[in-house]
Amino acid sequence: MSILAPSAATSAPPADDLAARYRSVRALTLALAEPLSDADATVQSMPDASPAKWHLAHTSWFFETFVLRDHVPGYALHDPRFPFLFNSYYEAEGKRHARHRRGMITRPTLDEVRAYRAHVDAALLAALPALPADARDLVALGCHHEEQHQELFVTDILHLFSESPLEPALYAPEPKEPVAMPGPVGWITGRTGIVRVGHDGRGFAFDCEGPRHDALLHPHAIADRTVTNSEWMRFIADGGYRDSRHWLSDGWAWVTGEGIAAPLYWEAGDGGWTRFGLDGRRPVDPAAPVTHVSFYEADAFATWAGVRLPTEIEWEAAAAAHDASGGHQMDRAGAVEPRPAPQGPAFFGNVWEWTGSAYRPYPGFHPVAGAVGEYNGKFMNGQFVLRGGSCATPRGHARASYRNFFYPHQRWQFTGVRLAKDL
Amino acid sequence: MSILAPSAATSAPPADDLAARYRSVRALTLALAEPLSDADATVQSMPDASPAKWHLAHTSWFFETFVLRDHVPGYALHDPRFPFLFNSYYEAEGKRHARHRRGMITRPTLDEVRAYRAHVDAALLAALPALPADARDLVALGCHHEEQHQELFVTDILHLFSESPLEPALYAPEPKEPVAMPGPVGWITGRTGIVRVGHDGRGFAFDCEGPRHDALLHPHAIADRTVTNSEWMRFIADGGYRDSRHWLSDGWAWVTGEGIAAPLYWEAGDGGWTRFGLDGRRPVDPAAPVTHVSFYEADAFATWAGVRLPTEIEWEAAAAAHDASGGHQMDRAGAVEPRPAPQGPAFFGNVWEWTGSAYRPYPGFHPVAGAVGEYNGKFMNGQFVLRGGSCATPRGHARASYRNFFYPHQRWQFTGVRLAKDL
Amino acid sequence: MSILAPSAATSAPPADDLAARYRSVRALTLALAEPLSDADATVQSMPDASPAKWHLAHTSWFFETFVLRDHVPGYALHDPRFPFLFNSYYEAEGKRHARHRRGMITRPTLDEVRAYRAHVDAALLAALPALPADARDLVALGCHHEEQHQELFVTDILHLFSESPLEPALYAPEPKEPVAMPGPVGWITGRTGIVRVGHDGRGFAFDCEGPRHDALLHPHAIADRTVTNSEWMRFIADGGYRDSRHWLSDGWAWVTGEGIAAPLYWEAGDGGWTRFGLDGRRPVDPAAPVTHVSFYEADAFATWAGVRLPTEIEWEAAAAAHDASGGHQMDRAGAVEPRPAPQGPAFFGNVWEWTGSAYRPYPGFHPVAGAVGEYNGKFMNGQFVLRGGSCATPRGHARASYRNFFYPHQRWQFTGVRLAKDL
Amino acid sequence: MSILAPSAATSAPPADDLAARYRSVRALTLALAEPLSDADATVQSMPDASPAKWHLAHTSWFFETFVLRDHVPGYALHDPRFPFLFNSYYEAEGKRHARHRRGMITRPTLDEVRAYRAHVDAALLAALPALPADARDLVALGCHHEEQHQELFVTDILHLFSESPLEPALYAPEPKEPVAMPGPVGWITGRTGIVRVGHDGRGFAFDCEGPRHDALLHPHAIADRTVTNSEWMRFIADGGYRDSRHWLSDGWAWVTGEGIAAPLYWEAGDGGWTRFGLDGRRPVDPAAPVTHVSFYEADAFATWAGVRLPTEIEWEAAAAAHDASGGHQMDRAGAVEPRPAPQGPAFFGNVWEWTGSAYRPYPGFHPVAGAVGEYNGKFMNGQFVLRGGSCATPRGHARASYRNFFYPHQRWQFTGVRLAKDL
Repeated sequence: MSILAPSAATSAPPADDLAARYRSVRALTLALAEPLSDADATVQSMPDASPAKWHLAHTSWFFETFVLRDHVPGYALHDPRFPFLFNSYYEAEGKRHARHRRGMITRPTLDEVRAYRAHVDAALLAALPALPADARDLVALGCHHEEQHQELFVTDILHLFSESPLEPALYAPEPKEPVAMPGPVGWITGRTGIVRVGHDGRGFAFDCEGPRHDALLHPHAIADRTVTNSEWMRFIADGGYRDSRHWLSDGWAWVTGEGIAAPLYWEAGDGGWTRFGLDGRRPVDPAAPVTHVSFYEADAFATWAGVRLPTEIEWEAAAAAHDASGGHQMDRAGAVEPRPAPQGPAFFGNVWEWTGSAYRPYPGFHPVAGAVGEYNGKFMNGQFVLRGGSCATPRGHARASYRNFFYPHQRWQFTGVRLAKDL
Repeated sequence: MSILAPSAATSAPPADDLAARYRSVRALTLALAEPLSDADATVQSMPDASPAKWHLAHTSWFFETFVLRDHVPGYALHDPRFPFLFNSYYEAEGKRHARHRRGMITRPTLDEVRAYRAHVDAALLAALPALPADARDLVALGCHHEEQHQELFVTDILHLFSESPLEPALYAPEPKEPVAMPGPVGWITGRTGIVRVGHDGRGFAFDCEGPRHDALLHPHAIADRTVTNSEWMRFIADGGYRDSRHWLSDGWAWVTGEGIAAPLYWEAGDGGWTRFGLDGRRPVDPAAPVTHVSFYEADAFATWAGVRLPTEIEWEAAAAAHDASGGHQMDRAGAVEPRPAPQGPAFFGNVWEWTGSAYRPYPGFHPVAGAVGEYNGKFMNGQFVLRGGSCATPRGHARASYRNFFYPHQRWQFTGVRLAKDL
Repeated sequence: MSILAPSAATSAPPADDLAARYRSVRALTLALAEPLSDADATVQSMPDASPAKWHLAHTSWFFETFVLRDHVPGYALHDPRFPFLFNSYYEAEGKRHARHRRGMITRPTLDEVRAYRAHVDAALLAALPALPADARDLVALGCHHEEQHQELFVTDILHLFSESPLEPALYAPEPKEPVAMPGPVGWITGRTGIVRVGHDGRGFAFDCEGPRHDALLHPHAIADRTVTNSEWMRFIADGGYRDSRHWLSDGWAWVTGEGIAAPLYWEAGDGGWTRFGLDGRRPVDPAAPVTHVSFYEADAFATWAGVRLPTEIEWEAAAAAHDASGGHQMDRAGAVEPRPAPQGPAFFGNVWEWTGSAYRPYPGFHPVAGAVGEYNGKFMNGQFVLRGGSCATPRGHARASYRNFFYPHQRWQFTGVRLAKDL
Repeated sequence: MSILAPSAATSAPPADDLAARYRSVRALTLALAEPLSDADATVQSMPDASPAKWHLAHTSWFFETFVLRDHVPGYALHDPRFPFLFNSYYEAEGKRHARHRRGMITRPTLDEVRAYRAHVDAALLAALPALPADARDLVALGCHHEEQHQELFVTDILHLFSESPLEPALYAPEPKEPVAMPGPVGWITGRTGIVRVGHDGRGFAFDCEGPRHDALLHPHAIADRTVTNSEWMRFIADGGYRDSRHWLSDGWAWVTGEGIAAPLYWEAGDGGWTRFGLDGRRPVDPAAPVTHVSFYEADAFATWAGVRLPTEIEWEAAAAAHDASGGHQMDRAGAVEPRPAPQGPAFFGNVWEWTGSAYRPYPGFHPVAGAVGEYNGKFMNGQFVLRGGSCATPRGHARASYRNFFYPHQRWQFTGVRLAKDL
């Protein structure tokens, strides 16, 4: 997942609602940063990840650039050097700091970045009532944009803490109620024939979710829940990581080249498997959905199980009838992690689900003009679509039409697996 | 393109026809090797390419392993050390020499590999009349397999010779008739709605071409010819390689990281653009189809032109009515290269055409069991489908349903571009 | 420069003097850290450099391990997890955190590391009066060790800040008195024949400085000052970085491969050359000694000038008569940088001077037993000796016999050039 | 070892003697190439090695360039494209083919390179009687140059064949007489005080062997033979490769990073250690000198044994009294390998002996002017000196003053170990 662009179909929200929404989104980001030290917020643990401070500043840069600079006469940049630092990848917005060197920025400090946020917040909230509709659309877009970075914030910090030899816990563990082990997967027979998919124009969506269009489904069934840790342990115990027959060719090269033998953050110990999480290192919960697996692993698991991954169309057709704001999603800062799912079909929350669909444009797709047009379209190669939202997705952010995407080897997000099969 | 597996629908050809077919295919491979020295046939110019000698031996290993060893009682391997050397990527067939070290095999010599071929040919032709149907299927598969390697043979040798500082010509230039410059692209309105695609079971096909299935087309048009060199020169002159807006994100990283500014083998000189070919370095023919471009370049060109690449389904639907054995394909060894296409729509020959479709399984696809099941399915990620066949494809090898596939940065094959657009 | 081991000839200093010395050394380290934020102190800018926090902790670990743990009955480690984090390279002391991942340690925080220091200080000063002589030797060694890390602290922070796109200044510029441009180099005729070099056993020395031994000098002269920035600008203007004839083969590969065209931290602007320093980016002072040049550059400069670098023996013989505590060395935290040298020969301070001598053991050298024996001996290959001390060397740390050493491409230390020639 | 430059002290040999010498040297090179196929002669097995064909051509290019082109009026180059291909590293001689791509040159063929040799031979022998003295010096230099490449030819081919999975034998094994196991090392007390070393001006020498100069020796002893394979097996059995205490820091990183556990070409099997050689894979001879060890290994072995490597001065002082043309050196093409040494001190032949001396210029050294000045001086950093000549050194090529040099990790030459110790 990276970023986004406004749906052509969006109608600008009223300024009052938007102010409340803006305040709420901005507050959650600050809450996520609350337990971090200046150093925690500065270090970049790998090129794929960004420092927390960078997320805090970049999301503010977005509002400052596309709303305040472009739509508020007389607005003066908080610091004219910041755009170079906090532009992410918008070529049209000029040169920027190299992505893999984001961790070198020890100054501005975390507090100075908080001050930058406060400056932008004050200016934006003051300007909001008078903003034209297209600028209000950009504010709404910026809120969704910031929600995406909230999820990255959580997963990037998790990765950073996992690299620290002392494996510090950022939060106390979440209280857990005992849950019965999920029973066998139930298979939901999917629709066959032409279905209508893609965003329907009601409410916000990113450009890549449209145009809404017809798609054709073949006879298939889709699992009513995602794969659990206990099922994954069976895959491991059965030698799944050591048998080339289960793996795509590139996946096999990745497994053998990197020495992969379990999901990210898992370690085998005397007492069984443990995983590192936002609450430190703890035993793997057998009943919870497996997470931190790559597309390669997801595909190999499905092959081992004799089935396959769903296509994104199959997934969307099945999920459309479910409540996208339900399930285990992020409501507040804390030690979020996947939880054993309730009985009955669930399609949202817990883990992003790898689909078998390459991330490519829908029929009739065209990026919007200007810098915001770089949000999604230019990433449409070599990546795979994930659906459903995770325990780190801010509740309300996900939709049935939402298309997340990552490279097939990446697994530091809360990624998991739902199975499907031909009928 | 890598390899293949037998269509379940294939019915074994009669032994007499098969013997003739076998002799003909094997003879063309030898003809391709004819002008090569032992050294030419041994060196590996990059990890993606294989030595000519390796192609000669590997195609023989295929027949020896899957037909003679498995189906001819009492057959003794020509040399028990050869399977380790000449297995390509069949994990089920045991350990093998590392792909990127294939160029270290100076012994056996080219002549010894020719003797290996002769041994296999004699044994196979002797055994053929008595082979059961499933073994005859494997012989037919082996012929198609060898045809694929003939094309790789040609493009790998071209790459090797391009790396030689003296830029030797392997062949004299092909005689050329003067051809009028192609006029503007004509747009063919494609079908809309459900179409039936995939191999129909008549004749041979690789497993990935099926199952035949319904697919849904949206309103679109497809160009009646591929992009020419003169059109590509306009793209270059317009700064196409230096403007990030045309490029996918990964493509832009590739262009800037590798310093790409023209198709592979092109050089700018005082007298204009030249290209290296099997006949040495010569001027670029403005009327001929552009070739040796990557998917990234093809996609950027289409974006620059305001249109897009076709999907593989659009391509197949349009090409189905054309003669797959027509156009400029390979009939004999020589300095093959794309030629200006005739007037009127042409879908086969000259250049493989990048589509916008990721190489993924068709609905209901399952690899066949056993080692041959590794032929296609395990490559179904991260690559893009090409269609149509090229000047180096042995005539008769291509089909409307044929799915070739390469990574988006690769361009040492005869790859080109056909445009499409939404209606 | 890395680390050290106690001279066999050291006689343990009295506890009172040692306590004063210990307090003074430890105080300077804290002063160096004073202007740093938690983030500044945490980030690692390259594998060769260490985070400031790491220097603060590692120097304390040294005292805790080799003095408190080994010599103070009942001492409890401040934190049993710290040895894994803060051991540098002592294989005999067990596993340790990978050097190039030192920047991942956001926790413990800078304040927690300061608390670690305070704990060690209290324990050590309490124990000092009763420590046996060999433990007092280790305390003295630890003070010299910490002085080495003070210099690395300064140069590592300088490198980190240079990587920050905003190029922050850590300190205000040092006040500068106008200085006359140095005149031409004066040549000091060196001694010929047998000279006695190496540490003479009076006072502290690292093991690699001995044994004291005879060495043979051939007729030569040595410059009375180091090369200035204005002389270096002439080398640049004369195409020195682009003419292979001046360069060692590995140096030429380095210059062309890395695109080197000036000393580290230099940039060419409209107003001439600037350099980045602890006081930010400012004009290069033509009268000051050139610094931040590699051995390759030093050697190429000497070749261009028609002379050569001195051997370490020539240097030591010439420097022995000078006051090792004179010259421009570090007395306090601040924006230290080389200054124009006074008239008359000067051998200490300003810049470490590359010699033409490979860092190899002296005749009869043997590392001491135990973990401390890893300090110097194991680095005796592939590096070159530097002599003299720099503006970042704590005054009192350098000696005529002192052997600093770095790889020939490294230049983030305050390294400079003195010329010599055969007579 | 790379290359050379004429000693200032050389007096040009008479033309008749020189013609005989030239014929003899050139004939041995051809004999070495005799068993090679075109492919064997073309492939480059690693960047450090060159193809046999390249050695054949480069040595001819040397004579053609520095003698025929520069000193024979009207001489026309055999092929004007060859200098680009066959210049090695003489920057002054213009652009050249990239070293690591030498294996791409399949054309010219081996036979065409032989024709190039014949052309150069005819022209040079015809011109020789009338050549001026300085040109005759260059012919003599070219003969020594070619002898160096003969040794590289042998070791590069050995490396290539070792990379071939079939491990072909280039030659039948040399006949071996049974030899008694060497007894314990005898220690020769070396001279103490000033000794005169470096080439004395009688006969040919490379520039780096001079100037002759005084050097100072400290009390020491040097072993009367090199380390044997059986002694090396004891080092292995004692865990020598797994104990960091024996290793230089860079050596330890090399051993652990590359997974080194035995000399190059050794393999452990059921029947004990085997090694690959020019006669294929055969058992390690316990009585023969160990070879194919790096400086790092040599140094670690010495440390393990409680002693050290000799300096190059110690070695030269001890070897000066021995016959440099004695011992096991190369007299003809064949399966040369180290043999058990005779009783009594031996300093020449069998293996090049790593010394503890970095390869740096002698006092007063200056490279000669012009392109030939690039032969030695520019390599004087980061490498270590080896002495004595090996089983692959053409007999007559070595001298007591001869300085061979390689990087500390390299071991594909016939490199071995002699011990020394302080007294």
